[in-house]
Amino acid sequence: MTKRRVASGSVSRHFAGHRPHSSMFFTLRRATIVRRTVRSLRCNSTSSKPNAPKVVFSGIQPTGVPHLGNYLGALRQWRKLQDEAAPDDTLLYSIVDLHAITIKQDPSQLRQWRKEMLASLYAMGLNPDRAVIFCQSAVPQHAELMWILSCNASMGYLSRMTQWKSKLALPSNANPLDPSPANKAALKLGLFSYPVLQAADILLYGTTHVPVGEDQAQHLEFTRDIANGFNHLFAPSPSAPLLVSPQTILSPAKRVMSLTEPTKKMSKSAPDPRSRILITDSKEEITKKIKTALTDSTRGISYDRESRPGVSNLLDIMYYMDESVASSPEALAVEMKDVSLKALKEKVAETIENSIKDVREKYEAVMNEEDKHDGYLAKEAEEGATRASKLASLTVIKVKEAMGMI
Amino acid sequence: MTKRRVASGSVSRHFAGHRPHSSMFFTLRRATIVRRTVRSLRCNSTSSKPNAPKVVFSGIQPTGVPHLGNYLGALRQWRKLQDEAAPDDTLLYSIVDLHAITIKQDPSQLRQWRKEMLASLYAMGLNPDRAVIFCQSAVPQHAELMWILSCNASMGYLSRMTQWKSKLALPSNANPLDPSPANKAALKLGLFSYPVLQAADILLYGTTHVPVGEDQAQHLEFTRDIANGFNHLFAPSPSAPLLVSPQTILSPAKRVMSLTEPTKKMSKSAPDPRSRILITDSKEEITKKIKTALTDSTRGISYDRESRPGVSNLLDIMYYMDESVASSPEALAVEMKDVSLKALKEKVAETIENSIKDVREKYEAVMNEEDKHDGYLAKEAEEGATRASKLASLTVIKVKEAMGMI
Repeated sequence: MTKRRVASGSVSRHFAGHRPHSSMFFTLRRATIVRRTVRSLRCNSTSSKPNAPKVVFSGIQPTGVPHLGNYLGALRQWRKLQDEAAPDDTLLYSIVDLHAITIKQDPSQLRQWRKEMLASLYAMGLNPDRAVIFCQSAVPQHAELMWILSCNASMGYLSRMTQWKSKLALPSNANPLDPSPANKAALKLGLFSYPVLQAADILLYGTTHVPVGEDQAQHLEFTRDIANGFNHLFAPSPSAPLLVSPQTILSPAKRVMSLTEPTKKMSKSAPDPRSRILITDSKEEITKKIKTALTDSTRGISYDRESRPGVSNLLDIMYYMDESVASSPEALAVEMKDVSLKALKEKVAETIENSIKDVREKYEAVMNEEDKHDGYLAKEAEEGATRASKLASLTVIKVKEAMGMI
Repeated sequence: MTKRRVASGSVSRHFAGHRPHSSMFFTLRRATIVRRTVRSLRCNSTSSKPNAPKVVFSGIQPTGVPHLGNYLGALRQWRKLQDEAAPDDTLLYSIVDLHAITIKQDPSQLRQWRKEMLASLYAMGLNPDRAVIFCQSAVPQHAELMWILSCNASMGYLSRMTQWKSKLALPSNANPLDPSPANKAALKLGLFSYPVLQAADILLYGTTHVPVGEDQAQHLEFTRDIANGFNHLFAPSPSAPLLVSPQTILSPAKRVMSLTEPTKKMSKSAPDPRSRILITDSKEEITKKIKTALTDSTRGISYDRESRPGVSNLLDIMYYMDESVASSPEALAVEMKDVSLKALKEKVAETIENSIKDVREKYEAVMNEEDKHDGYLAKEAEEGATRASKLASLTVIKVKEAMGMI
């Protein structure tokens, strides 16, 4: 099984593995990095020149240790972008806790989940000396720019966004002021306004590139509309925009389904912990969870998401974890067509283990560091927030000046 | 004409005059004041004890030099509250530019209007050594707390608020997502969300007392609901609320009408500058504007807002400017019933001039100071913002801790 290019129309992905960087501590002095990122942010405000430095922003909710769905859907690409970034590129990775609170959260769980997510990002090889890694709520400019942008965001446009409807499990034609009791009680302003905060997250840093899943494309379009509308009103000239309209780095959907209910997405909120594999799971846990994964009684291996969701999900996971195993999940199924289900499961578990072993070990190292030096993670996150805030303030100051508030 | 108490049911108001404080500069060291205000803010978080220190918050839009409507409606009470405050009370007066931008603003005009409003507050005798005077947009915690509160603010409740409807001149049963073209284009998220920012403004400082006009009573009720809802979810116990539910200091409506169209409120946005008197108008300007004020051709003076709006407005203004002239505008009309309209207008102009002369002179002194030391006003405002931000951060930190974001 050799690595081949995937069919055109999807993006070739090579998982670079988890070369642990030499230390969680500084390999470059922070001040130098801030200067460099500040410079690159400035350059980008007038760019879409081919060689202009990129500014990449992405966010993830604080849901604790990521499961394979988070990992394959977004986080592994963050690492890839870091590994492939040019020296002048800026990378910003945010744990978006201000988005998390649009849904009711248990405070102590949220606190723990923020910490676990942060440790997981470091464990995956995201390097706080290279990327700006921070919690959104520690950078007040997110909320500041959100308010400013909200003054030019149309209620009608927002009511057509799908996010609040899907979070409340409402039909796509639901009205935010629908007098039905469930809706009325549940729909809070924060959830409805979510896309504007997301636009602020991105526009705050002069972001040129946003890695997104297909389900986020609508929000990126909204972000661009907000940027263009703002520039139209306040930018001194079309050639000197105040807010940079970002491009998407669209990745093909990597839908990882629940191991116990393979017609549903793998999710942190599913009650059965056997439904998901966390990136810190031990070899034994992985083996056990894959062994008990729901499949079917059809003989042999074949790929059909409709009629064999469980088996197809295992093939997807194996292929996503290591694309060198075949050219596609379908091709993998053909190669393994006569293998027993038991043997497939063993192979899948082995592939997962090989792929995330380094992450698990690094996670343990990070948590040991945290145990030894209490507040180590909080301190790291604070440094990230300070760097993010410096960058963000450049945009907020420009915006306030243009609007007459400075 | 001696000063008498006004009829019960309204609030006795004695305009204390404008004793200019000895200097715009420090009479007390700022650090002492911050310590004192921090202490009193802490005390208040568990108070409604009769002798507990008060925290008073109020805001005004940056509309440039105030006209008599602003002055009599709110600003003169700010001065009165300052004069009557106990040493441990905290006073916060904010120029709410983040609210101003919910409606389209011309940037250079907004910049100028912020400055003029600030100078006017100082000119009225508001003392930056006693009260925390600041621009809202310079204190990022307003937007931060706004976002946090928005995650628990019901869309249905907000849609029933009247503010966005009146600003867009829509009927009281208008729906924020009404597909009518005018509404759809005009209603922005910021205008719709305005009451939540207003709640954040107040709750940020542990405010115990908010001076409001009757038209704001609905928003204060909303603020209390937001505070109680938040405490219910996140406060460790009912006896230790995180957010203080504020009381209103309700003042009787002092409606000052346009001089040229006395059925409309005096307004900065009316095209005819003769329709309003600014608190910096010269004696000649005041006399001229009152002379050309629209009245009627009925002989003698009588008070009837319906049939004689112009004359009644002049009587109102005279009475409001100096309540020692009579016990009420109606009583004033009786006293002056045989006086000619010309003589009434002279009296009114004279009363206004006597009342605001000191303010005008102080305004000129402040602006001279600004001319001599460029950026003097900006520096004063920045100091106010720094003090406000320190106080605000106490609440934001408590709130974030309670929610699991610290």
